[in-house]
Amino acid sequence: MVNDKNKSTEESFGVFNDNRSFPILGGWLHFVKFETAKINECFEFVHSKQLYRGDNANAVIKATGGGAYKFADLFKEKLGVVIEKEDEMDCLVAGANFLLKAIRHEAFTHKEGLKEFVQINHNDMYPYLLVNIGSGVSMIKVDGDGKFQRVSGTNVGGGTYWGLGRLLTKCKSFDELLELSKMGDNSAIDMLVGDIYGGLDYSKIGLTASTIASSFGKAISENKEIEDYRPEDISLSLLSMISYNIGQISYLIALQYGIKRIFFGGFFIRGHAFTMDTVSFAIRFWSKGGAQAMFLRHEGFLGALGAFMSYEKHVLYDLMVDQLVETGK
Amino acid sequence: MVNDKNKSTEESFGVFNDNRSFPILGGWLHFVKFETAKINECFEFVHSKQLYRGDNANAVIKATGGGAYKFADLFKEKLGVVIEKEDEMDCLVAGANFLLKAIRHEAFTHKEGLKEFVQINHNDMYPYLLVNIGSGVSMIKVDGDGKFQRVSGTNVGGGTYWGLGRLLTKCKSFDELLELSKMGDNSAIDMLVGDIYGGLDYSKIGLTASTIASSFGKAISENKEIEDYRPEDISLSLLSMISYNIGQISYLIALQYGIKRIFFGGFFIRGHAFTMDTVSFAIRFWSKGGAQAMFLRHEGFLGALGAFMSYEKHVLYDLMVDQLVETGK
Repeated sequence: MVNDKNKSTEESFGVFNDNRSFPILGGWLHFVKFETAKINECFEFVHSKQLYRGDNANAVIKATGGGAYKFADLFKEKLGVVIEKEDEMDCLVAGANFLLKAIRHEAFTHKEGLKEFVQINHNDMYPYLLVNIGSGVSMIKVDGDGKFQRVSGTNVGGGTYWGLGRLLTKCKSFDELLELSKMGDNSAIDMLVGDIYGGLDYSKIGLTASTIASSFGKAISENKEIEDYRPEDISLSLLSMISYNIGQISYLIALQYGIKRIFFGGFFIRGHAFTMDTVSFAIRFWSKGGAQAMFLRHEGFLGALGAFMSYEKHVLYDLMVDQLVETGK
Repeated sequence: MVNDKNKSTEESFGVFNDNRSFPILGGWLHFVKFETAKINECFEFVHSKQLYRGDNANAVIKATGGGAYKFADLFKEKLGVVIEKEDEMDCLVAGANFLLKAIRHEAFTHKEGLKEFVQINHNDMYPYLLVNIGSGVSMIKVDGDGKFQRVSGTNVGGGTYWGLGRLLTKCKSFDELLELSKMGDNSAIDMLVGDIYGGLDYSKIGLTASTIASSFGKAISENKEIEDYRPEDISLSLLSMISYNIGQISYLIALQYGIKRIFFGGFFIRGHAFTMDTVSFAIRFWSKGGAQAMFLRHEGFLGALGAFMSYEKHVLYDLMVDQLVETGK
């Protein structure tokens, strides 16, 4: 279950509909998001579509992530549905593997606003580093179907952006905060190398004048209070800090394990160009161009997809992927 | 020049006074800090002690860091003194090397509140990673006297703690903010693993219930505004986030370069037990106990010491260290 977005949005793709001879595989996958605070809208939606087979007293919905724990009782109470909790890491990996194998235009790079799709060779996919940016960040080394290890992570993630952003800007939603950042100028609040060195680069160590030396470093000024800073600038400064930090740590972890491909998923990114550009920049910068970040079109649904697949873990998954590789030609 | 502290403090140690036959080496080194905002107190102090040889029209003070650029004109105007800027990385390394060689009880480890001095073997000091935490963070691989490379860094440092802390708590000084953190409870504002998993550990991936899953992740709550959080808790949450992040990246960099010793310096630490414990914990956790953080008693004066040494770069330095190694027995 993925439950974070201001407006509920619906996406779908019809990867299965070519082959009606596998009825279990017929139909479309639909993706819908609800913000955690709007869980009631989620119940109404599930109810209105009868997604839980309301006539079955033993109805079960597979779910993963924190929400699977937090909302299990509420699902039972409101819809009479049992939530079956699936392991989060298992689901993220199963979802990512499925997407990378089944969807032709799933993975892409992002550089200076430009998106470029990358065709993944299914026979040479592993190992890869999956960086899932939710409230916190998990970094998972994936070696095959069901073969993975959560090797690292950071507590500076989407929850930090939204939590700090809410306190500092009074925005009402994550997406409002993200939208604000598009009009921001972080040099109003970040201390840049040029601020320290009188407008000059510190070229001896490869830092240009516009490099951020200290995120929020200008906010130490005694003459300004929180109200004197534009929410747009605060949002951009926060987003830069967190995206860059995630990019830097991800690169170091990939290096530690000798992994060349890094895929980013999770609800934090939301197709936001600046976020992807910053993560990409950090990885290019620290790897001196040797590594690059890749993003996933269905970034926010890895866990949900993995949970869906766990209905018939072994049979369904193998069938789907085999078929999809064929029909995807 | 080091210029950040709420109250100006004075420390001194008499490492040279055993041997009067080297007049250039006689006397004591005194360390005094002034907060940037209190630069006028600094001028008064320098003037009252006549530290700049006021009778010499060509008086020169060696200085490094951003302040050497920012305050050069003011020094000329107020005291008639020329500030000679020395390269910051050169100075940090010269200062650290000097301290590690010359001061018997300089380096120490810090674990759960306990400080333990480490005797450094001068013949087996290199390489080490010097992590200097000022407004931003520089990570320098040191291979010998004057032999070093700034291999990494992060923009999430002391300026981030103080900048964000000022905006969020209205504290009037860095030290006030740091002091507040001692009475803080970060679980009020950080999202812990236990918050996500209904009070349980996520033991499958080695995360206990009290691990921070998302710094400031609880601040996404719609029912609370900034005023509803205790400044003490905000301060501690910020300090945890930044200290842990620096520890994690430092460990990864040390690993990348095969370095076993990591020393932390810079004005951010200020002998604060929680900061040192958090940095130490991060390094122990990620290295599975294989690496440990070391701190420096004169952490905030590396650059200043290095700048002082640059008066007579080659002659003075070698003499001092040789002599000190002898007298230090």
